[in-house]
Amino acid sequence: MGKRIGVMTGGGDCPGLNAVIRGVVFAARARGWEVLGVEDATSGLVDLEYRSPHGNRWLTCDDVERILTRGGTILGSSNKSDPFKFVTIRDGERVETDVSDRVMENFRRLGLEALVSIGGDGSMRIAQRLCDKGMPIVGVPKTIDQDLACTDYTFGHHTAVQTATDAIDKLQDTAESHDRVMLVEVMGRDAGWIALHSAIAGGAHVCLLPEIPYRLEPIVRRVQERQARGYPFSIIVVAEGARPVAGEQSTAGPRELGAMVKLQGAAQRLAAELQPRLGLDVRTTVLGHLQRGGSPTQFDRILGSRFGVRAVELIEEGRFGHMVALKTPEIVSVPIADAVSRPNLVDPESQLVKAARACGVEFGE
Amino acid sequence: MGKRIGVMTGGGDCPGLNAVIRGVVFAARARGWEVLGVEDATSGLVDLEYRSPHGNRWLTCDDVERILTRGGTILGSSNKSDPFKFVTIRDGERVETDVSDRVMENFRRLGLEALVSIGGDGSMRIAQRLCDKGMPIVGVPKTIDQDLACTDYTFGHHTAVQTATDAIDKLQDTAESHDRVMLVEVMGRDAGWIALHSAIAGGAHVCLLPEIPYRLEPIVRRVQERQARGYPFSIIVVAEGARPVAGEQSTAGPRELGAMVKLQGAAQRLAAELQPRLGLDVRTTVLGHLQRGGSPTQFDRILGSRFGVRAVELIEEGRFGHMVALKTPEIVSVPIADAVSRPNLVDPESQLVKAARACGVEFGE
Amino acid sequence: MGKRIGVMTGGGDCPGLNAVIRGVVFAARARGWEVLGVEDATSGLVDLEYRSPHGNRWLTCDDVERILTRGGTILGSSNKSDPFKFVTIRDGERVETDVSDRVMENFRRLGLEALVSIGGDGSMRIAQRLCDKGMPIVGVPKTIDQDLACTDYTFGHHTAVQTATDAIDKLQDTAESHDRVMLVEVMGRDAGWIALHSAIAGGAHVCLLPEIPYRLEPIVRRVQERQARGYPFSIIVVAEGARPVAGEQSTAGPRELGAMVKLQGAAQRLAAELQPRLGLDVRTTVLGHLQRGGSPTQFDRILGSRFGVRAVELIEEGRFGHMVALKTPEIVSVPIADAVSRPNLVDPESQLVKAARACGVEFGE
Amino acid sequence: MGKRIGVMTGGGDCPGLNAVIRGVVFAARARGWEVLGVEDATSGLVDLEYRSPHGNRWLTCDDVERILTRGGTILGSSNKSDPFKFVTIRDGERVETDVSDRVMENFRRLGLEALVSIGGDGSMRIAQRLCDKGMPIVGVPKTIDQDLACTDYTFGHHTAVQTATDAIDKLQDTAESHDRVMLVEVMGRDAGWIALHSAIAGGAHVCLLPEIPYRLEPIVRRVQERQARGYPFSIIVVAEGARPVAGEQSTAGPRELGAMVKLQGAAQRLAAELQPRLGLDVRTTVLGHLQRGGSPTQFDRILGSRFGVRAVELIEEGRFGHMVALKTPEIVSVPIADAVSRPNLVDPESQLVKAARACGVEFGE
Repeated sequence: MGKRIGVMTGGGDCPGLNAVIRGVVFAARARGWEVLGVEDATSGLVDLEYRSPHGNRWLTCDDVERILTRGGTILGSSNKSDPFKFVTIRDGERVETDVSDRVMENFRRLGLEALVSIGGDGSMRIAQRLCDKGMPIVGVPKTIDQDLACTDYTFGHHTAVQTATDAIDKLQDTAESHDRVMLVEVMGRDAGWIALHSAIAGGAHVCLLPEIPYRLEPIVRRVQERQARGYPFSIIVVAEGARPVAGEQSTAGPRELGAMVKLQGAAQRLAAELQPRLGLDVRTTVLGHLQRGGSPTQFDRILGSRFGVRAVELIEEGRFGHMVALKTPEIVSVPIADAVSRPNLVDPESQLVKAARACGVEFGE
Repeated sequence: MGKRIGVMTGGGDCPGLNAVIRGVVFAARARGWEVLGVEDATSGLVDLEYRSPHGNRWLTCDDVERILTRGGTILGSSNKSDPFKFVTIRDGERVETDVSDRVMENFRRLGLEALVSIGGDGSMRIAQRLCDKGMPIVGVPKTIDQDLACTDYTFGHHTAVQTATDAIDKLQDTAESHDRVMLVEVMGRDAGWIALHSAIAGGAHVCLLPEIPYRLEPIVRRVQERQARGYPFSIIVVAEGARPVAGEQSTAGPRELGAMVKLQGAAQRLAAELQPRLGLDVRTTVLGHLQRGGSPTQFDRILGSRFGVRAVELIEEGRFGHMVALKTPEIVSVPIADAVSRPNLVDPESQLVKAARACGVEFGE
Repeated sequence: MGKRIGVMTGGGDCPGLNAVIRGVVFAARARGWEVLGVEDATSGLVDLEYRSPHGNRWLTCDDVERILTRGGTILGSSNKSDPFKFVTIRDGERVETDVSDRVMENFRRLGLEALVSIGGDGSMRIAQRLCDKGMPIVGVPKTIDQDLACTDYTFGHHTAVQTATDAIDKLQDTAESHDRVMLVEVMGRDAGWIALHSAIAGGAHVCLLPEIPYRLEPIVRRVQERQARGYPFSIIVVAEGARPVAGEQSTAGPRELGAMVKLQGAAQRLAAELQPRLGLDVRTTVLGHLQRGGSPTQFDRILGSRFGVRAVELIEEGRFGHMVALKTPEIVSVPIADAVSRPNLVDPESQLVKAARACGVEFGE
Repeated sequence: MGKRIGVMTGGGDCPGLNAVIRGVVFAARARGWEVLGVEDATSGLVDLEYRSPHGNRWLTCDDVERILTRGGTILGSSNKSDPFKFVTIRDGERVETDVSDRVMENFRRLGLEALVSIGGDGSMRIAQRLCDKGMPIVGVPKTIDQDLACTDYTFGHHTAVQTATDAIDKLQDTAESHDRVMLVEVMGRDAGWIALHSAIAGGAHVCLLPEIPYRLEPIVRRVQERQARGYPFSIIVVAEGARPVAGEQSTAGPRELGAMVKLQGAAQRLAAELQPRLGLDVRTTVLGHLQRGGSPTQFDRILGSRFGVRAVELIEEGRFGHMVALKTPEIVSVPIADAVSRPNLVDPESQLVKAARACGVEFGE
């Protein structure tokens, strides 16, 4: 008789989640297994009656046949469903409880024999802990930012970089016609992959990463050197986690600046600092959630589909505590513990960063 | 012998400007006329040596053959080149001078017999005044916001609405998967056309326009009514000029809020007000300059091309002081004075707004 | 008590059909009416048990909330369901029967008080005949080709032209880099609107329409004149219904050519004729069904939504036998009989065609 | 003093060619080298006066600054410029001559010290032979089809697959709404990578590759099994080099079919065979040159840029007779001889093909 397995998606949105779900369902159903779609990350396991908007449900191939093209996740997701620190509001207070035993119990009551957990760094850590408690889990790495180690790429990243590149293309037109300095803030709190990739692809002139603290002087110099050559416009890509080298940032300033620094992001802060130093209009665009939505690119659909299929094979092989990973051109498996032991950051001395410098990208060094 | 005419683009960026320039050049060259591309709005007429990055230049069909697909304007533009209040920086001070006589003089020195001025409300007013001084000008209306009267559509608006609609499509995915309220701020300080059109096209649940001051209560009700029906997500489109009805906005508040209100836009302000009233994540995206760039849609390329061709015909017919306009399906001409006498605003009782209401769009009334 | 109405979609695919259905359902449900979605055009009325893949079903706002972005029609469609000549296969033979009485009877059995018929020329003629038999019908015009009279635009056309323009943009790159003549065949058997609009928007050099029979000589001249000026590439847009002037086409020729003429379309035929006359590579692309699919543009979503809402108002006003139409900027109603009395063809002497000529488009005249 | 190098592009069009050129120019100019852009593959070396439309020219960073977004190649290309079999037309006859000595001589006269040859299989073979004659060449692999060995990916392939996937997405809408079998023919004469990748990404039901000869029976079964389950539509992706197993194809048939088989491609042939066996409408779309044009995806822009930069490093390192290649995540170098010794074909037993089968793709086996 076939197995019963569960599949769930955790953490922030990422194009390609539905491709993974589809791959899992197709591969499992072909083996005669049943697949429970668990709603809103572990929420559906914490409370079997949980419902928002659908609740847990058994998935057929027909249910997932046409979801490949859609952003988001048909299972819903949540950032607040760590079963070891489950958040509830009691008497207006936010309370964190360890409900992992209840999750283990519900998992057994559902008759599940394995769980595919699709998620990022946080979800993989939770998966590891549930695994340690005896739940047979395989992981599927999901991160827009590409900050998980042990895999060449994760799905969603390509779509996000494409969205950022499309935005830079649009801003180039206006920057050139109107002699402007355009700042684009993209995602990446700790890892600057989206910024780096979209800066190269968009032909940006400056790119600021969390991994390379920046100084204002080389940025100003790059913009002014362009202006002197008859190009009074520049594109600056800023990762949300980009920050100046210690001591660089103007700490003194009016109270209003203080509020602004707190309320606003890396790009708006930089804009406020650059504007007075340049004789040019500086405009800021924050891409934000646009990078997490949209129909996935073909690359992310293929990678997601392959991840889903391979996750089912890992269950068949009994490789619990492992996650799928891309080691081009194969999908391999790696221990979840290895993947979460260190983040995947941009190496400032890597060949890729050197190629970016060669293509005229200034990193504010 | 052929005429000598000039063409220039003024004001903010707008997809389709190059289509107009191309239409003007093709139509004029076919008549054996010469066409001077004037650089950076009137800058190129204020100072014949002006150069950024190109300077004035005579345009051939080959120069414009392949520009139809490109955003921006090959002639450059400027918001600071009103010849009646020309801005210069003298001793660190911003000084405004009337240089219109010099512009008239330069126009004659160049041997020009007519000028095509492509621009928005401001540019059309300047065109009218130069016309009154004796310069033979025909206008081509350009406004992302669609706020110029006397024409069914202006080029650029369709592209901007498409960009906004694409963004809403992306945000819908994430909103639905993650139970979020997504605010999208689009352009439109006085006229809410981009917000209205993209809200209908994107299937938004709330749309806030400059023309319809909003109250929070119906917005909260709409979101909560959806939540109660099992749809814990909503999309709210906010024009940058949207504002609450008098007395609605929380005036009291911490100093930080005061700064925020000043520094931030309509959507972020609304988010700060909505968040505490809803039990849901509220996220804001400000589209900003993305709406002004990008390759124009087919509609804007066709409209721009037709406007350009018709502008040359107006010169031939001697209809100076007129601008081209779309009276579907024909391109007609209207006195510039009429077009700038009143803005084209959204009528809250129009058939279009009623259709939006019928499709479930709440205007916060 | 509320009315019961039906809605159905007929004829070929067209982006925006779902927007109309959504508009009908939202507007009707707001009035407390019930809306039956009729499956596969009149098939669902001919046979109440008909099912492919869904069968008739009552539609709620939730059913249509998220369909705005999707191409196709959730109700299915069919080209073979004319109730006056209903096609069935009996003993391997194709038999046509008049089942209109059964359709009338089924309409009554379902308790329907009105029907919204969304379709093209053919569907509107059927609607008129059912109306004449006493069925209270309002029409919504649907045609990719824009060949229905009495309305400024129909939904779907803008999306089709955008798809064709995107294709031309791609072909321009290769044509220019590889010195090629690229033929693009677009839809339009009798009306050349898609060809005309996409030729202007794509900056094509030649455009061949059903309304303007072409001669080879001016086409060859245009291509060679470009080559002589240093542009050894050209883009030729061909409507599927384009044809040479009488006597122009090579009638003599090998048998193979005879077969080819029959099997292949307008563009491939033209390519075979042009290739030997030019010293250049000639390549053909037939866009075909790509023009009928895809997410509708914002324009088509808005127009579709408004048509749907207005159709419900026509029912309320009792204006049966009428169809909605766009008379910019209003949605009006016109008698179906007027709309189908003559096709909407391109007028070779119209301002639009003249503007195309002015922009360098050769029509082979 | 700096080196003088040349760069040229050969073979069919491929999105990302301009990114490579840009990378070469940026990296070379940063070293103080001069870069000659050679026009239309080796044409510019065969005849130093060659001109179509530009002729050879020295390239600056400004020349290539904004070309990243553009399809095609600013240097032009040609399929007819093999210097060992150079094609000319003499007295109406096509004559092939070995002009390689002249090419060597011109290379020296231009003072070039190295050449970057960007091209496919054919161009790499020519590069190898010129290398053998003493020309210092480094190669950059270019192939839409991904049929060159020794590199994980080549630029252009991702864009082509995205174009094919977008097309399949559009056809899915119509197929579903109108109960149709849609055949899409994509590029790939010997290698089925585009078909395989786009079939997975587009959620196709059948995929036919040159590497897996197909039988009709499993295709018919797959379509009918879907129909029986209530899904009377299917998407079939066909590589242009797909062919039936020996003996499968109907050889007998009317003369017209004979002509058709010769004139038409793999998809139209299959359609003619499938139509009578299925009770469904079968429609064919041939994507053709659409796959070679368009703005490159971010992936192809990055890969192209890195290839260009690395090619300059290979020159610096004196690694002539080598070509750049992607060994994820690094750009490495491999002997050209190795890369052209065998094609990169789809392995029917690879993990990727198995994943496709698991996702419901039938290969007609």
